[in-house]
Amino acid sequence: MTTPVSNPSGAAAAPSAQRADGRTPDQLRPVTITRSWLDAGEGSVLVEFGSTRVLCVASFTEGVPRWRKGSGEGWVTAEYAMLPRATNERNQRESVKGKIGGRTHEISRLIGRSLRAIIDVSALGENTIVLDCDVLQADGGTRTAAITGAYVALADAVAWGQRQGHVKSGGRPVLTDSVAAVSVGIIDGTPMLDLPYVEDVRAETDMNVVVTGSGTFVEVQGTAEHAPFDRAELDALLDLAVAGAADLTAIQRAALEADA
Amino acid sequence: MTTPVSNPSGAAAAPSAQRADGRTPDQLRPVTITRSWLDAGEGSVLVEFGSTRVLCVASFTEGVPRWRKGSGEGWVTAEYAMLPRATNERNQRESVKGKIGGRTHEISRLIGRSLRAIIDVSALGENTIVLDCDVLQADGGTRTAAITGAYVALADAVAWGQRQGHVKSGGRPVLTDSVAAVSVGIIDGTPMLDLPYVEDVRAETDMNVVVTGSGTFVEVQGTAEHAPFDRAELDALLDLAVAGAADLTAIQRAALEADA
Amino acid sequence: MTTPVSNPSGAAAAPSAQRADGRTPDQLRPVTITRSWLDAGEGSVLVEFGSTRVLCVASFTEGVPRWRKGSGEGWVTAEYAMLPRATNERNQRESVKGKIGGRTHEISRLIGRSLRAIIDVSALGENTIVLDCDVLQADGGTRTAAITGAYVALADAVAWGQRQGHVKSGGRPVLTDSVAAVSVGIIDGTPMLDLPYVEDVRAETDMNVVVTGSGTFVEVQGTAEHAPFDRAELDALLDLAVAGAADLTAIQRAALEADA
Amino acid sequence: MTTPVSNPSGAAAAPSAQRADGRTPDQLRPVTITRSWLDAGEGSVLVEFGSTRVLCVASFTEGVPRWRKGSGEGWVTAEYAMLPRATNERNQRESVKGKIGGRTHEISRLIGRSLRAIIDVSALGENTIVLDCDVLQADGGTRTAAITGAYVALADAVAWGQRQGHVKSGGRPVLTDSVAAVSVGIIDGTPMLDLPYVEDVRAETDMNVVVTGSGTFVEVQGTAEHAPFDRAELDALLDLAVAGAADLTAIQRAALEADA
Amino acid sequence: MTTPVSNPSGAAAAPSAQRADGRTPDQLRPVTITRSWLDAGEGSVLVEFGSTRVLCVASFTEGVPRWRKGSGEGWVTAEYAMLPRATNERNQRESVKGKIGGRTHEISRLIGRSLRAIIDVSALGENTIVLDCDVLQADGGTRTAAITGAYVALADAVAWGQRQGHVKSGGRPVLTDSVAAVSVGIIDGTPMLDLPYVEDVRAETDMNVVVTGSGTFVEVQGTAEHAPFDRAELDALLDLAVAGAADLTAIQRAALEADA
Amino acid sequence: MTTPVSNPSGAAAAPSAQRADGRTPDQLRPVTITRSWLDAGEGSVLVEFGSTRVLCVASFTEGVPRWRKGSGEGWVTAEYAMLPRATNERNQRESVKGKIGGRTHEISRLIGRSLRAIIDVSALGENTIVLDCDVLQADGGTRTAAITGAYVALADAVAWGQRQGHVKSGGRPVLTDSVAAVSVGIIDGTPMLDLPYVEDVRAETDMNVVVTGSGTFVEVQGTAEHAPFDRAELDALLDLAVAGAADLTAIQRAALEADA
Repeated sequence: MTTPVSNPSGAAAAPSAQRADGRTPDQLRPVTITRSWLDAGEGSVLVEFGSTRVLCVASFTEGVPRWRKGSGEGWVTAEYAMLPRATNERNQRESVKGKIGGRTHEISRLIGRSLRAIIDVSALGENTIVLDCDVLQADGGTRTAAITGAYVALADAVAWGQRQGHVKSGGRPVLTDSVAAVSVGIIDGTPMLDLPYVEDVRAETDMNVVVTGSGTFVEVQGTAEHAPFDRAELDALLDLAVAGAADLTAIQRAALEADA
Repeated sequence: MTTPVSNPSGAAAAPSAQRADGRTPDQLRPVTITRSWLDAGEGSVLVEFGSTRVLCVASFTEGVPRWRKGSGEGWVTAEYAMLPRATNERNQRESVKGKIGGRTHEISRLIGRSLRAIIDVSALGENTIVLDCDVLQADGGTRTAAITGAYVALADAVAWGQRQGHVKSGGRPVLTDSVAAVSVGIIDGTPMLDLPYVEDVRAETDMNVVVTGSGTFVEVQGTAEHAPFDRAELDALLDLAVAGAADLTAIQRAALEADA
Repeated sequence: MTTPVSNPSGAAAAPSAQRADGRTPDQLRPVTITRSWLDAGEGSVLVEFGSTRVLCVASFTEGVPRWRKGSGEGWVTAEYAMLPRATNERNQRESVKGKIGGRTHEISRLIGRSLRAIIDVSALGENTIVLDCDVLQADGGTRTAAITGAYVALADAVAWGQRQGHVKSGGRPVLTDSVAAVSVGIIDGTPMLDLPYVEDVRAETDMNVVVTGSGTFVEVQGTAEHAPFDRAELDALLDLAVAGAADLTAIQRAALEADA
Repeated sequence: MTTPVSNPSGAAAAPSAQRADGRTPDQLRPVTITRSWLDAGEGSVLVEFGSTRVLCVASFTEGVPRWRKGSGEGWVTAEYAMLPRATNERNQRESVKGKIGGRTHEISRLIGRSLRAIIDVSALGENTIVLDCDVLQADGGTRTAAITGAYVALADAVAWGQRQGHVKSGGRPVLTDSVAAVSVGIIDGTPMLDLPYVEDVRAETDMNVVVTGSGTFVEVQGTAEHAPFDRAELDALLDLAVAGAADLTAIQRAALEADA
Repeated sequence: MTTPVSNPSGAAAAPSAQRADGRTPDQLRPVTITRSWLDAGEGSVLVEFGSTRVLCVASFTEGVPRWRKGSGEGWVTAEYAMLPRATNERNQRESVKGKIGGRTHEISRLIGRSLRAIIDVSALGENTIVLDCDVLQADGGTRTAAITGAYVALADAVAWGQRQGHVKSGGRPVLTDSVAAVSVGIIDGTPMLDLPYVEDVRAETDMNVVVTGSGTFVEVQGTAEHAPFDRAELDALLDLAVAGAADLTAIQRAALEADA
Repeated sequence: MTTPVSNPSGAAAAPSAQRADGRTPDQLRPVTITRSWLDAGEGSVLVEFGSTRVLCVASFTEGVPRWRKGSGEGWVTAEYAMLPRATNERNQRESVKGKIGGRTHEISRLIGRSLRAIIDVSALGENTIVLDCDVLQADGGTRTAAITGAYVALADAVAWGQRQGHVKSGGRPVLTDSVAAVSVGIIDGTPMLDLPYVEDVRAETDMNVVVTGSGTFVEVQGTAEHAPFDRAELDALLDLAVAGAADLTAIQRAALEADA
């Protein structure tokens, strides 16, 4: 396990009247990224956004699924799941139910798309990387934490593949950018960043934004939870998200620069 | 079956160099809404966006699911599916596979959320309306056509419930607004409205926007398919979507005003 | 879409005291066959028996399932399904239940056997044709309508395969005959042809008969619903079915002779 | 276990040139019915048609499924299954596959319908009888053997319910008739009775006929396996089946009259 | 079917005060092994431990599962199941439930492991033997009866494979030992052998012991049902089991020496 | 999170020639128990046996399953699962496969039985405690670590229920004893305690023993992996297991006595 890397601002959050946890509207929760959290996995990251705790493990295998064979291109995919008691009430296991719910499917697909946006699959070559994002504790923002942590695990797995000689991109970067995600929402008329569960349920509008390290968008998913939102609100939320994502990018970079 | 209602501009689309089907970038495909397409169903709408053809049927039942009993509030939900040969290649039935895929789940949930955004569940009272959106033919934009048609079927089902005396909202409107959806995307650098399949696969960025009749947003789902997008591109796409949705709103209104 | 082809007698049914819809006991409901109802599908037929409406789509693919490879013979199979609100009460989707019911299985198998009875699989060569029969609206006789429509879609798919050069039967006919099906039943002691739902539930005996164009039997399935039946009743029902099937054969032939 | 009851003719079948097992075309295989084959089950019958061996167990429970409560009527249903090595090649278990195949469903439904045709559900009262028909060894005619044996198990279960006082029909008979089933088929142009596997695969036409003790039909299911059949062939098969069923009825009666 | 082989002591059990069925604590129930109970199956054994009746069928096929190809080694596996009315109350079929329960899995795995302990897979060569153990009637000890019977069916299947020339072990024995299993338990403080259902539910401790013909252990599975057990109790149970297993070994040997 | 509690001997294991990790044959790996590892869960314990890491979470709910209502007795059950990359090679998720494997079922049942052996369900009253044991990292002994950790989580959940007033046992202890489990095996003829994965695959015999705090047995599961074992070997393994379990009991007690 490497030394966890956190955001100083998050850790030092001063008490304030605006949010129950003392943050200002544009402040992230304490974010911590711990690499090599497991012995197994070509990349294994424990990512924490406040109390939300997600284990992101990258598994690198040579070869690609049948439908991609001979293309010279690699494949990156993701599976998201939640432990039964990650939440306040126990949920039945999807393995016991015998089927995966719509929400699980939706988030797995989102994580996969987000990572594929910043990887050059021909530089990766015919190799597959699967990202398992298992939520150990859920307090809002599990999908955004998962994307943020999965990127770091992916970077570790790509580096592993290069060290092992499985990835021969000849100097071409495999990762064309980094990617991070954050939730934003409007609560009592105020746009706020990185919502924990208590804020999430109260938000009139909820948006998850996936942003590259260079500040462009990979996904923008805004949903009117209690009332439709207008263009001005959408703009304010996007501004907040872009700034928050930049902070996450800095933490990702610091974590990856720390000694593995 | 009522007389189909279409958009004149769509129907009269003049040849142009910009799009394979002769439309200008900001023009909808021919859109047709046919109410009472079936004998059964408290609302049954065949909606067509060009070659895309979706059958939207609303089933009204008194009572609500157990977890909602006694709340005084109704429930609206949706299920989306595709016939096996709606597409160019036959797909295996999800009933035969024994499980529903992630894409199906995701779109079903999107349709449900979109409709719930414009219905006042306490005015609906303890009644349930299920919207079945079955794609008979798919040529891009099936989810946006489904939302647009499902709104009309929902309106018919609400009116049916009122005529039957199941909905007693005492003059309070059950539907607080209308809702329509349209896809937009950037192709070769140009933002374009309402993408058929051939454009959809080429789009660098793909966005589905769900807009109320009064022009506010219910859902904004933008995805970088081939390259991340910047704020200017996002703004251009939103402008296009809002204008296109206004056209759809007009067609919905005309269809609902026509004699059932 | 080709011009729909219907039975004149059906369309012109004169009022009568015997049946709720004015037909005589030996009269078919209005039957309409519309070819090329979809853009996709090597054959796509909307078949209507009164209010019963079934979409029959044939998908032609080169090659056969593994267990048939190298035999020189083709394969024809069918899948039957019903949209959730095809009936008066909404039924849960089989994809949502995660399993296919006994009735669905039984009818799918019946359609497949009926079509295989009139196709020369060695003339077809190692090609597969799958018939999807999806009931859009159900008012009795969905399986017999499905067989009747599926034959026309099959004929179109075979012709397509010949035009494309996938089927090289060297002049040998691939279809050795045509096939149609009709339901018959005894209601209040009177044998009647082509039962709609209201008659079906009242029938003492219910029989589905699958007949070739040349008047021989492919399937005879008689079931005592409320009382066992004797040989005389069985004979009367078979007479009625054979005559009704001959009418359906004529409509099929007219539809196939019309310009596609 | 009671003394097995068999058909003398079957047991004494003299060698003949016509069939591999020495029977004449209109002769049943040796048929044996053994009641009380298990300690459990309100009726448990081992029925043998030649090498075909089916265990039919009736389970009687007070009460009916929810949808039938308060109707005053009982319910009879059946489940058919085959042990994995009942056949010459081992088949995968349906429990392992996780789903029941079409053939299993179809036969289960046929058995249930056949038994319901001869039971007076209001005389049965709100009681349920489930018939489990498990094929221990399969050599053709498993569904007809199952129906024939299941009737005897059903009769035992009804008698048990009457002795226990659960069935209070006040003298009204619960079973209005008996029911038996037999297969017939045309082989090399000759109609033959009760086909073992080797004959079944060669039959041009295959028919299963379910007949009451009084000689009327409950089900007639004829299928053209290799060639459509005409009215004369159908008539010959029905004659054969009615005579064979009468022999089975006699064996059923003898078995039920023997001391339990 | 071969002549059934039984234990004389079991059959002659004298009345006694200690157990409801008159046995002494260290006495087996009447045990009967009938080989070739079916026509199909390379080995088919009906094994009875008192009222418990299990049909064990061995299916021999050339070749091994993919993951074992090229190893030169064979594979032996087992599947255990219970007919729905094997027990006093009817159980729902696992095929109908669509999934196999934990108990079924556990016992299938136990039988497979027990048989693999006494087979030399390299002497077997690349052949697969599947043992299907279906409980026709359950009265305690179904898993131990299944193992005991499955060994005999396995021995028959191995001999069949040798006679057919599929197994070419060059004189090396394929079966390195025999294997049998028996249950033991403590009831009212007394260790007892081979528990029927009425004793099983009362046992404070329940143990299943799988023993080779030469008296060594393959599996020891002891479970405290109502109270933890100490070392002295464990020792007493093991003594009882080893002696009982020796009796079973003798019956197995006698059955295999009888003429098939 | 409470301060982790470990075994000093484990932590201080001196290098030795006998085992790859330097332990003597009768020495446990470093064992660590961390209580309150999550915010949610009425008891949440991270238990580590060397590199094996299992998260055991107890969920307490008032009420019992339907079949136990009105009995006055509570219910304790367990579910075991493994994250996909807990092992060296990634395993497919059971939720994705749509069914739970035999091994998972077997271990879940074992954990549940072990805990029920030391709880007085009538003292618990009509409350349910579910133990979720999710393996985050697997290096042998996952089921024994799970039982050992689950006991501590169970104790915390019982205490929580008492503090909340849900458990009113009136002074009667709810937990009648503690329970721990350890694996033992014979490697190269030497009995060894607490096998990591590399030893586990080499063991001739593998045994899992569940022992109460007072030294009696709850479960003894011994399996001959490569060769049957004799009584002397069984005795040596039991001795080793009992001693190892006593060490685990001490660690459990220390962890529960530490401040929560």
